[in-house]
Amino acid sequence: MAKLKLTYFDFDGGRGEPARLALHIGGIAFEDHRIAGKEWPAFRDKTPFLAMPTLEVDGQVFSQSNSINRYVGKLTGLYPNDDLQAFRCDEVMEAVEDISTRIGQTIGLPEDAKKKAREELAAGLITRFLEQFQTKLKAAGGEYFADRHLTVADLKVAMLIRWLRSGVLDYIPKDLVDTVAPQLVKHFERVTGHPKVAEYYQRRKAA
Amino acid sequence: MAKLKLTYFDFDGGRGEPARLALHIGGIAFEDHRIAGKEWPAFRDKTPFLAMPTLEVDGQVFSQSNSINRYVGKLTGLYPNDDLQAFRCDEVMEAVEDISTRIGQTIGLPEDAKKKAREELAAGLITRFLEQFQTKLKAAGGEYFADRHLTVADLKVAMLIRWLRSGVLDYIPKDLVDTVAPQLVKHFERVTGHPKVAEYYQRRKAA
Repeated sequence: MAKLKLTYFDFDGGRGEPARLALHIGGIAFEDHRIAGKEWPAFRDKTPFLAMPTLEVDGQVFSQSNSINRYVGKLTGLYPNDDLQAFRCDEVMEAVEDISTRIGQTIGLPEDAKKKAREELAAGLITRFLEQFQTKLKAAGGEYFADRHLTVADLKVAMLIRWLRSGVLDYIPKDLVDTVAPQLVKHFERVTGHPKVAEYYQRRKAA
Repeated sequence: MAKLKLTYFDFDGGRGEPARLALHIGGIAFEDHRIAGKEWPAFRDKTPFLAMPTLEVDGQVFSQSNSINRYVGKLTGLYPNDDLQAFRCDEVMEAVEDISTRIGQTIGLPEDAKKKAREELAAGLITRFLEQFQTKLKAAGGEYFADRHLTVADLKVAMLIRWLRSGVLDYIPKDLVDTVAPQLVKHFERVTGHPKVAEYYQRRKAA
């Protein structure tokens, strides 16, 4: 088994969290390297594309969150073998990344511009993406996004849903998901209720 | 064999072109559905995430360009079977998408803001990404980005390099790639010199 080191910010969410969860679910040992916010400016240049997460595999550095999710998903049985099911899984992960990036780009804006941008996103792209995710979930059987079992796509969507419902994103109604795509709330509860996921967060809370 | 219909803008480049090239190289029949720029505003809402390309597989619509590239790559032998080589391939495709999106976001800006944004990108992220692509190309053996043979990652990078060197992007020096990552120019020539790729563009030119 390859030696794995996952490097990401020190919080329970974002682009690095699906891989942490997948490795935990799969019972695969890895170094959980966490970078504090204040360390990031100095650390940034050490990453290939000035971004985290990165995953070292036997010392070889890889980056790009969905590429990491896919590799880790293969190691842990959380990525479909079937080409068409893998396509479903990939599409959803890539779309979550797209909308997350759009939301992320509003974080540093001045307050007025942030309000305008986020209100437009909430009424426009975010609603559209949530509706589409719900449609795709139903098309895939209603419980999981691909292959009728938990995959890294489910973990990726769950992190987005948690973020949107957390209340940290001013001007994006925290009940938006519940209103426009209630099946995604049920899906979120399904994912976070997975015994390994639930145990992981209980342990994190206690730490 | 599934019935395939690829829908994208009517030009030889961008996010839809790697899949077109891959299908051509692999000799797999598909409907090459091209949307004229003037048709796009009305067509946009028919796509799942308000974006192209999309790929229909036996009538089922999928989107997200790298997800499409990966699926098509598997059909055509242009995607690695080995997990670590697939990781290399994925990482590069995802990074190309990231930098292309950043460049794409400058297209609609007012002239002054466009100049500022593109000059910053050229000196900053674009240079960084090009240098890293060159480093990763060398680490993978120097000829191809993964698995020592042509993959969809090579097609994806080649489209970026052609765009950057084309001269259509004002304020981004068209010799930037040649200056900061000359191995990527050689790589571009290797990809476009592939008999099937060369034949494809000769045929397009004649059409």
